[in-house]
Amino acid sequence: MQVTVVPHAGEIIGISGKTAVVIDVLRATSTMVTAFANGATAVMPFFTPEEAKQYYGWHNNKLLLCGERKGVKITGFHLGNSPLEYTGDVVAGKTLLMTTTNGTKAIKRSETAGTILIGSALNAPAVADQLLRLHEDVVLVCAGTRERFSLDDFAVAGLILCLLRERVKLAMDDRARAACLLAESREMRELLLMSNHGQYLVELGFTEDIEYCAQVGKINLVPYFDGKMITI
Amino acid sequence: MQVTVVPHAGEIIGISGKTAVVIDVLRATSTMVTAFANGATAVMPFFTPEEAKQYYGWHNNKLLLCGERKGVKITGFHLGNSPLEYTGDVVAGKTLLMTTTNGTKAIKRSETAGTILIGSALNAPAVADQLLRLHEDVVLVCAGTRERFSLDDFAVAGLILCLLRERVKLAMDDRARAACLLAESREMRELLLMSNHGQYLVELGFTEDIEYCAQVGKINLVPYFDGKMITI
Repeated sequence: MQVTVVPHAGEIIGISGKTAVVIDVLRATSTMVTAFANGATAVMPFFTPEEAKQYYGWHNNKLLLCGERKGVKITGFHLGNSPLEYTGDVVAGKTLLMTTTNGTKAIKRSETAGTILIGSALNAPAVADQLLRLHEDVVLVCAGTRERFSLDDFAVAGLILCLLRERVKLAMDDRARAACLLAESREMRELLLMSNHGQYLVELGFTEDIEYCAQVGKINLVPYFDGKMITI
Repeated sequence: MQVTVVPHAGEIIGISGKTAVVIDVLRATSTMVTAFANGATAVMPFFTPEEAKQYYGWHNNKLLLCGERKGVKITGFHLGNSPLEYTGDVVAGKTLLMTTTNGTKAIKRSETAGTILIGSALNAPAVADQLLRLHEDVVLVCAGTRERFSLDDFAVAGLILCLLRERVKLAMDDRARAACLLAESREMRELLLMSNHGQYLVELGFTEDIEYCAQVGKINLVPYFDGKMITI
């Protein structure tokens, strides 16, 4: 099984036909995984708040507008991007129209992949299981931050690779090797707190979100994106 | 002191006016550092063998044609890219016209930097000393392999960062943080052997070169590039 790592959403190339795992651990993909664990029906990713609002205007039955800009809930939206907001009483049975700075963009830009899975530390072991079942070449797509490398997503890519490597022979490129070494070097919590975006979220008062997102394997499901809708 | 890391020669942007350290540990910059330790007068980097040969044709007194393609000495050249070839009896008093797949390209593409230093594991502590003396913003330019990320150069960037961080407060971006964590995770020898290019060199029979290039701090000098010539 061949595995490569895309360092950020600005470098999503050559993924056509492969299995992609999109990772925006702080916080979009952690939030999506949590929403499904709490009964959400589907997530629709959008590039912009305007597109999400337009869709909402047409179909607003059982829909919630969700997402952030600069880490903070978008004005007029129901929910921000903190996984702790996505409780069962809020999201069960709902479809979430979601737009975030990096995560939803990375998901939509991965459209040419054969299969697109939603990854985070929360569901990393479930993602590894699913990749082993599919047994195809894998691209781990780190959303990154504003088209730059981010330590947090790279660490989760490394975590998934380490979990795979325990169970199957992997053909890794150097970036995948570096991600593995990084994931093994520290606890996930420490790596997320050390990252630039982690530090920004701490400044915004979201330390609890980081502690939550660092829980490896807390949720046993893998959402996938069909090019329009994310479901489980 | 602000420090950033360029992952490969294809991403050399935004270095204007900064202090750049160009790293191609396997093997161009290790070879250059060794050549200077053994008495070479200067190194002139060229993009192509043709350019090097043309220059040689005009001025061949005390000049040597040096370099590799696909890791192997270029036909008709005096030396390949193994640091072990660059002994005192061969290089003392000579100017080396050098062209390699990644290293000399990365050096020439770093021309817009204010100061350009030549870095490797061999001279990493000397490079860190020099950067502390200059006390300017630093860009660590990993040559990479054919415009792709390479673990070996990234590990040496991390090594230099770790040495700096012990002595000065650094403002690091996430890529610099990742490089540091990587450099701390294993011995340099192990990281170089693990890298894709390291494995290729082992296949070519250059294992001894890798052992040599992994010796941190063996050589106490820092060559610099003035836009035309590398000297000490």
